[in-house]
Amino acid sequence: MTEGNPLALPEDHLFGPDNLPYGVFTTEEEPDLRRIGVRYGDSVLDAGAAAEAFGSPHAELLRAALLNPLMAAGRDVWRAVRAELRGWLTEDAHRETVVQYLHPLTDVTMHLPFEVADYVDFYASEHHATNVGRIFRPDGDALTPNWKHLPIGYHGRAGTVVVSGTPVVRPQGQRRPKGEEQPSFGPSARLDIEAEVGFVVGSPSTPARPVAQADFREHVFGVCLLNDWSARDIQAWEYVPLGPFLGKSFATSVSAWVTPVDALDEARVAAPERTHALLPYLDDTGGSQEPGGFDLRISVALNGEKLSEPPFSAMYWTAAQQLAHMTVNGASLRTGDLFASGTVSGPEPDQLGCLLELTVGKGPFLQDGDEVTLTAWAPGPDGSRIGLGEVSGKVHPAS
Amino acid sequence: MTEGNPLALPEDHLFGPDNLPYGVFTTEEEPDLRRIGVRYGDSVLDAGAAAEAFGSPHAELLRAALLNPLMAAGRDVWRAVRAELRGWLTEDAHRETVVQYLHPLTDVTMHLPFEVADYVDFYASEHHATNVGRIFRPDGDALTPNWKHLPIGYHGRAGTVVVSGTPVVRPQGQRRPKGEEQPSFGPSARLDIEAEVGFVVGSPSTPARPVAQADFREHVFGVCLLNDWSARDIQAWEYVPLGPFLGKSFATSVSAWVTPVDALDEARVAAPERTHALLPYLDDTGGSQEPGGFDLRISVALNGEKLSEPPFSAMYWTAAQQLAHMTVNGASLRTGDLFASGTVSGPEPDQLGCLLELTVGKGPFLQDGDEVTLTAWAPGPDGSRIGLGEVSGKVHPAS
Repeated sequence: MTEGNPLALPEDHLFGPDNLPYGVFTTEEEPDLRRIGVRYGDSVLDAGAAAEAFGSPHAELLRAALLNPLMAAGRDVWRAVRAELRGWLTEDAHRETVVQYLHPLTDVTMHLPFEVADYVDFYASEHHATNVGRIFRPDGDALTPNWKHLPIGYHGRAGTVVVSGTPVVRPQGQRRPKGEEQPSFGPSARLDIEAEVGFVVGSPSTPARPVAQADFREHVFGVCLLNDWSARDIQAWEYVPLGPFLGKSFATSVSAWVTPVDALDEARVAAPERTHALLPYLDDTGGSQEPGGFDLRISVALNGEKLSEPPFSAMYWTAAQQLAHMTVNGASLRTGDLFASGTVSGPEPDQLGCLLELTVGKGPFLQDGDEVTLTAWAPGPDGSRIGLGEVSGKVHPAS
Repeated sequence: MTEGNPLALPEDHLFGPDNLPYGVFTTEEEPDLRRIGVRYGDSVLDAGAAAEAFGSPHAELLRAALLNPLMAAGRDVWRAVRAELRGWLTEDAHRETVVQYLHPLTDVTMHLPFEVADYVDFYASEHHATNVGRIFRPDGDALTPNWKHLPIGYHGRAGTVVVSGTPVVRPQGQRRPKGEEQPSFGPSARLDIEAEVGFVVGSPSTPARPVAQADFREHVFGVCLLNDWSARDIQAWEYVPLGPFLGKSFATSVSAWVTPVDALDEARVAAPERTHALLPYLDDTGGSQEPGGFDLRISVALNGEKLSEPPFSAMYWTAAQQLAHMTVNGASLRTGDLFASGTVSGPEPDQLGCLLELTVGKGPFLQDGDEVTLTAWAPGPDGSRIGLGEVSGKVHPAS
């Protein structure tokens, strides 16, 4: 890094030239003009304006108000744009031009970066599923018989996915307190978080044409952090037999930054050893595929104090398996589909991704005014680190 | 009706001047130009072209390629547009103009009429839930303890909602045959239908502001028929604990026509007597609200032969209750949200809405080449009938 270079970053910065996540921002001067931004250090590059200045063939895609057109453009374009961005931000010849399009992160407002098509939530941590199974179904087996054979998932509400920083109003609803015969109505008394990783689909797929695990990179544009807020009392009363509904649908928070899959090349790790043989479309034990796991180190903080450090590398089911499973029945993907991992929990007591597990079902759960923040980083090239955008939310009283 | 009047219809026509459902069509001459159509008799009115010819203030909304802008415009506009359409189609002074914008139904291709935002599927027939509970959980109570306290629902896949006439490719997936330890993979051997009614949201709602039952007409734009195709073997293996996923997500068919809620005024009926006291937000036993049920007479045909006649008036939970429940936790509505009733089944053996019930779980289920068609009508003014658009689909072999 050159002395006096305004683009120079400390070597250990989480948002260096190997990261370059995408978001959507506005400035105070033009609060109605949503623009695609790329995070670099503690700045945001106005990607559309820079692309125009450099005469990029992708200026139109980068001039959009949402990431969806870029996401739909496909992997070749993603790679070309990423190479351009890296060049503008790191090559001396471009410095004078590119600095004109940088905004301090503190001066901009971030927005939901993409329009969510369908939102699917999985249940891919064996530790989480086991812990929750013991709490919710104390008289049965912790894991249901299907758990080791397929990545269990369900559809969530796309319309209530919100960007990091959006207040989360405590939901009201029906719950039946222990020992009572009748349900009662009121604000959830067991409001929880779920620390998750979300995967954002760029290229759509064709109806009735399943997507193979090997085609993960063709379809998945990027990765975000996700907090699947959960009202445990509402969920416990409603979820048999058709699954979670109002216990989850009030809000799902995602980070403002979507990290390209290509930024996580050094974070690829093999999934845990499979204890059951898998059907061919889910099998990932052959040597020909790249490892399906990602070594993301998540940190969960409540009001600024660290609660736990869930390791994403411990997830039993990978995102590539989830993609293959989700489409194996012929269901197609759309640009903007978001699928999340389910709560990330590791084997240790300080690696659990929700309060239900951290308190063994006893609470305390979230109080009004509590603020939860998820952060994460992954190994990058040459010992560097790739940061994921944080996802944060503060609990507001029931309305 | 005037002799020689090209707009004259038989009195008992299901698509007369009190119906006027909306759809989206293309013509053979302009296959890429999607236009809003209004069904009148066996014709389709090009609503945008007619609106321009008549100088309507709503021409822009009716010139759209989807119903969403009209749906978003709100109830006052829906009523004004409906009054205009009725005037153009029934007043002698307009006849010469309006006939220029009519296309024979047989000359047009119908498309998915609106962009689906979130899709929610309920489980609102007591007869259906009881019958299915007995088949899926023979050792437990047929109805779960929550069933009479809240309308159970779950989110489905919005991206695979297709218009009537779209082929349905038999899904493949995991299922575990009875008595087997391991699941196997292959085409579903228990492909089924679910005869349902769908409700289409027009006006969005505000986050954290529940929608009351009394505001049903402010938010719900119209009604369609819906076939929730279901692979029973895939569903049975996957659905515990998080609900149906791949057993449903391959395809959901909707009718090409959306019938305005105002066209069903004469079809309003009280819901069945409530056997359990309801929490205030779900209570509909007070006399001040309009009846929440709809007297829709559904008919299910397999390869042209009538299978059953499910009565929508027998549904335990009403659409207004579903709307109130779906938003009571603060979840907001978007224009294009679609919520469906769940399988409509009545108390009699010839009133069941799926093959699982009609065959008491034994089959036969759908064969490749089978075609299922749902039709329905409701009482209209002065003894007339209001037809709902049919929803039809043919099973294609697994790919």
